[in-house]
Amino acid sequence: MLNVLFSAKSAAWTDYQAPLNAAFAEAGIDANLSRDHVPEDVDYIIFTPNGPVTDFRPYTKTKAVMGLWAGVETIVDNETLTQPLCRLVDESLTNGMVEWVTGHTLRHHLGMDTHILGQDGTWRDDSFPPVAAKRPVTILGIGALGAACGESLHRLGFPVTGWSRSPKDIPDIRCLHGEKGLQEALTDAQIVILLLPQTPETTDILNAETLALMAKGSFVINPGRGPLIDDAALLAALDSGQIAHATLDVFRTEPLPPDDPFWAHPKVTVTPHIASTTRPETAAEVIVENIRRGEAGQPFRFLVNRGRGY
Amino acid sequence: MLNVLFSAKSAAWTDYQAPLNAAFAEAGIDANLSRDHVPEDVDYIIFTPNGPVTDFRPYTKTKAVMGLWAGVETIVDNETLTQPLCRLVDESLTNGMVEWVTGHTLRHHLGMDTHILGQDGTWRDDSFPPVAAKRPVTILGIGALGAACGESLHRLGFPVTGWSRSPKDIPDIRCLHGEKGLQEALTDAQIVILLLPQTPETTDILNAETLALMAKGSFVINPGRGPLIDDAALLAALDSGQIAHATLDVFRTEPLPPDDPFWAHPKVTVTPHIASTTRPETAAEVIVENIRRGEAGQPFRFLVNRGRGY
Repeated sequence: MLNVLFSAKSAAWTDYQAPLNAAFAEAGIDANLSRDHVPEDVDYIIFTPNGPVTDFRPYTKTKAVMGLWAGVETIVDNETLTQPLCRLVDESLTNGMVEWVTGHTLRHHLGMDTHILGQDGTWRDDSFPPVAAKRPVTILGIGALGAACGESLHRLGFPVTGWSRSPKDIPDIRCLHGEKGLQEALTDAQIVILLLPQTPETTDILNAETLALMAKGSFVINPGRGPLIDDAALLAALDSGQIAHATLDVFRTEPLPPDDPFWAHPKVTVTPHIASTTRPETAAEVIVENIRRGEAGQPFRFLVNRGRGY
Repeated sequence: MLNVLFSAKSAAWTDYQAPLNAAFAEAGIDANLSRDHVPEDVDYIIFTPNGPVTDFRPYTKTKAVMGLWAGVETIVDNETLTQPLCRLVDESLTNGMVEWVTGHTLRHHLGMDTHILGQDGTWRDDSFPPVAAKRPVTILGIGALGAACGESLHRLGFPVTGWSRSPKDIPDIRCLHGEKGLQEALTDAQIVILLLPQTPETTDILNAETLALMAKGSFVINPGRGPLIDDAALLAALDSGQIAHATLDVFRTEPLPPDDPFWAHPKVTVTPHIASTTRPETAAEVIVENIRRGEAGQPFRFLVNRGRGY
């Protein structure tokens, strides 16, 4: 019997208790998952930095701490934590983003809304989209998420350009970088997808000037961060027809207030920060598999190198 | 000099004349493409069922009939047609179908309509779709189109089952066949895509009994042929909640009459037979290549087996 301590907020317990117990059962691991174990009895800790455990010294028998978050910047400086620490690397997070970005890119490419919103008995077969090969897509931000989305769109036949601050080289993506590369990446792009981190340099990266570089009647998809877009400039570009439609998943204020003009704009689709999320089911499987590895004497996956900080 | 008769509607002639002549020139074939040849002088016929030729008996010298449509169910019963008949298999047709099927599968998987139709200021972030890996998709019909769609969905992480009348073996697709295989393929499927040819055996293949095998609250996508579905049974399954939504691109009568109940049903999306369309440039190349093969004494590609009906 393994004693597994769950140290996170109550809401996380509600989400994770059943999936973790299901994953332990599936893996054939006899685990006693609880929020109340005597510290010296605990074999593993499942952990978020905002939970009750802050001093790891009493957990003398604990073999590893399994983080529930991908980011560990608020944990690595805890000097009482001498046990191995694993990040949560959940493929479902990347996969979910690829699904969302690929789906909404195809939605705009195919003109689906015409039919979803037009179920009025009119047989609208007078226009066909070009094949994907004639629809250039540009992704601003080609880290792990952006590169995975670009690869998915490339497989569907879209010509994909990616832009990042520093040079990158990714198969099947035309990689551009720097200020001049940004202009080239946006020029004549028909669908632009924002997957940049939020930094002072990326704030308002899509503004009146850069929106004007895109092809007339093109599309903006933002599953990245709200401040990447100058909202007033986007609204003006939608009104002028420069941008045909924007699908926005992230905003400067979330939830987006009911009176925000994005909600009422006929050329905007608001989605409620759902492009990608950690799913308890898959996250539980990742954590339990790592505990299984520990018990089998195999090396942990996603072990944090505390010198590097990630 | 080959005499090639173009027998289709005027609109098709407008679309195809230049691409066909360009493709003949490219292939070095000296062809006289016309809508008016004396029947006994005709070497090849490029044909759609809605064009002027209905009696093939006068075409005594004709070496083959090259269909401009992928479906041939309205041709195969023509008893005057004794010449070899080739279907049109066009890669841009396949690519377009893959885009449409992948897009609408992701649309239903992600629950996009909730947001496209719900731009009312309500931040609906209370439900997330499962990852694609937990969303089994079944494709009835795994010929060239079905297999390509299956491969695209597999790459996005969906578990894909394919069904065909006779056994097939396609990488990354769980291939089932025959009557018993059909039951297994539909059981617990969450998204079912119809890409079967229309034959007496496939008519009404989705009916009250087979719809009941699918997972409760699942989705039907039909870019194949209208008669594959028993319309009344589908409407009943939508009303009972057995099927959550159907996206239908093909119908028994097209255009779908304005008073058809599918138009008004809140759980149905009608699209106007646009899932895939032949692009004249690439189709012309495929047809001319087949004529080149005929002249070179090589077997025709995409020859229809009229016993099987496709």
